[in-house]
Amino acid sequence: MTTVNGSTASGVGADLTNEEIFAAHEGGKLGVQVTAPLDSARDLSIAYTPGVAQVSRAIAGDPALADRYTWTQRLVAVVSDGTAVLGLGDIGPRASLPVMEGKSALFKTFAGLDSIPLVLDTVDVDEIVETLVRLRPSFGAVNLEDISAPRCFELERRVIEALDCPVMHDDQHGTAVVVLAALRNAAKVVGRAFASLRVVISGAGAAGVACAKILHTAGVGEIIVLDSRGVIHSGRDGGLTSIKRELAGFTNPNGVTGGAAEALRGADVVIGVSVGQLAEELVATMAEDAIVFALSNPDPEIHPEVARRHAAVVATGRSDFPNQINNVLAFPGIFKGALAAGARKITDGMKVAAAEAIAAVAADDLSADYIVPSPLDPRVAIEVSEAVARAARVDGVANV
Amino acid sequence: MTTVNGSTASGVGADLTNEEIFAAHEGGKLGVQVTAPLDSARDLSIAYTPGVAQVSRAIAGDPALADRYTWTQRLVAVVSDGTAVLGLGDIGPRASLPVMEGKSALFKTFAGLDSIPLVLDTVDVDEIVETLVRLRPSFGAVNLEDISAPRCFELERRVIEALDCPVMHDDQHGTAVVVLAALRNAAKVVGRAFASLRVVISGAGAAGVACAKILHTAGVGEIIVLDSRGVIHSGRDGGLTSIKRELAGFTNPNGVTGGAAEALRGADVVIGVSVGQLAEELVATMAEDAIVFALSNPDPEIHPEVARRHAAVVATGRSDFPNQINNVLAFPGIFKGALAAGARKITDGMKVAAAEAIAAVAADDLSADYIVPSPLDPRVAIEVSEAVARAARVDGVANV
Repeated sequence: MTTVNGSTASGVGADLTNEEIFAAHEGGKLGVQVTAPLDSARDLSIAYTPGVAQVSRAIAGDPALADRYTWTQRLVAVVSDGTAVLGLGDIGPRASLPVMEGKSALFKTFAGLDSIPLVLDTVDVDEIVETLVRLRPSFGAVNLEDISAPRCFELERRVIEALDCPVMHDDQHGTAVVVLAALRNAAKVVGRAFASLRVVISGAGAAGVACAKILHTAGVGEIIVLDSRGVIHSGRDGGLTSIKRELAGFTNPNGVTGGAAEALRGADVVIGVSVGQLAEELVATMAEDAIVFALSNPDPEIHPEVARRHAAVVATGRSDFPNQINNVLAFPGIFKGALAAGARKITDGMKVAAAEAIAAVAADDLSADYIVPSPLDPRVAIEVSEAVARAARVDGVANV
Repeated sequence: MTTVNGSTASGVGADLTNEEIFAAHEGGKLGVQVTAPLDSARDLSIAYTPGVAQVSRAIAGDPALADRYTWTQRLVAVVSDGTAVLGLGDIGPRASLPVMEGKSALFKTFAGLDSIPLVLDTVDVDEIVETLVRLRPSFGAVNLEDISAPRCFELERRVIEALDCPVMHDDQHGTAVVVLAALRNAAKVVGRAFASLRVVISGAGAAGVACAKILHTAGVGEIIVLDSRGVIHSGRDGGLTSIKRELAGFTNPNGVTGGAAEALRGADVVIGVSVGQLAEELVATMAEDAIVFALSNPDPEIHPEVARRHAAVVATGRSDFPNQINNVLAFPGIFKGALAAGARKITDGMKVAAAEAIAAVAADDLSADYIVPSPLDPRVAIEVSEAVARAARVDGVANV
């Protein structure tokens, strides 16, 4: 029997064995269910010919009726090209499918939403956009998943422009929403004003960029982003990609230069969203009552027990330590709320509302070891979905 | 309360009302189910991160494992562009979706197969082929549905060429397979040798062309096809489309010219697969013990009771008369057998085997009013699927 990178990497208290993992995946993890019975000739005549013709004719006359008489308004397409799958990287669409099936299983389990994994045998942004435009009548929303940076930024922007329905790249915004929720509560635990926090984000990939944006939107005044070459600032040698130029435009207001050492010295918060490491010596230089989110999975940038020596609040992506930052807290409720509101898009306001709702579920029992609800807390998706639907109406993108 | 074209058009003994039809379609007819539980943190760790990474890594190393550890090998994409939906014509992809959901419901109910409706907002053959190529890793087979002729012929040919999996345009071959099954048994009922039958097919659309091909493959010697301009023959004025040229090449060996009157005089069988009508006077000119399949839905080309005055065996597409020729007898078992065998394609041999299996289920109780099993007969999909899988192995296209 082999274990997944040993017990440390398994992310659960008990070891997982390959045997039980593969057994659970035999034949895949999803099925289709028929929501109307087809037991008699009469049933057939209603759900199929000739009865169905009445429904098709009605939709042909008024396309908006498709929302009511098909499954699309509760159907999310989970779309990937397999280029950035978990920590495995570019393993292609076929190998990404078990992850997408898992995502669909989470949508169903936590939000009651139906979803279909669509894994694409192309990595060309134009082709992915075009494919989704052609498929548009088949679903009600798009969850982009495990698509590599920086392509993911352009792809998400263009899919949002092309489709009149909720679209979100979860690796960016799902993570960012939960980070915002967790940081709101962590600031309360240490008694700090949110806007005054000095936040360092280590990693400028999908999650890092989205975290920087949502924290900026939510009012954090000083955000510094580190990539593999150090602090991002507009004067850096060698040029910046367009997304990093954008980051340089609204982060690092005090013009910090250098690397992790310069960025972390005196910082209140560090958010690790890379595969790099956070050295204990550097975390030790942070401000008093520091907050450390070491979110790399399965191996956090710094072991949480080590970080705790120097920080007041520590969170990871793992279920076997306190404060699990898991985007399953966000995406099921975000899509459920957006679809329930008939939203044409997912706005920043809807994302921030989702974060506030997640934070609020944990608010009554806050402590250094409880800044976010458990991913299994059934209240979360309900609260998030209602908050997101309300925000969609406030932002004027709702239809219901 | 309104009824669907009155009771005659409903296709069932009792009237269907719009109220009950629309009520049954509220929210659509499909859902996704999770086949592995996600009730605990441990379940999550197996079906999602970190456990799922083991499965993705294994498939990355050996793509064939996707057949075993994802749902694709039991998943059919039901694909339409909405250009030829039931008798409604080109109503577009959105309005076609209730029909495709119904098709998926039939796949599940009759063969236990999962399927996802993909309705495409393009009618361009190149674009549809390209879209399915990009989506190929997402499913195990393709059921093309309700795509207008003559585009459907080129489209099916090109999708078959482009994909290494079972592909079938059901409006062509599903109907043709059941017609072949029914005609085998009808010939037995009237005591005629199958190969000696003189068959007239009225309609050169998707179903008519496929019927002509499968009957020719199965050994019927004389087939005459009628389109709206009369008998198809190679010398006809005004030229022929490429598919009709192909028909002219293997049908009408005696060079009949003219219209329905010339074709039907002395014919043993007429198969109506058009929206046209078959006049009683013409059916009266057919040979003794004639066989009439009036398959247009919901209004048969000739009322079955009228046809019965002149014919020994009459079949329709309707459930409220004897001998319902319904392609639900064919497609669930064909796809189930093809997927079970890991077939790279669906061969003529597999289609003929499906027809023989359908015919065999009814063989013990044959009569003029029972030449095919009921669409609800649970034996059919099982027998068809086993016969199709065997034929796939015989034809050398199986992988299992």
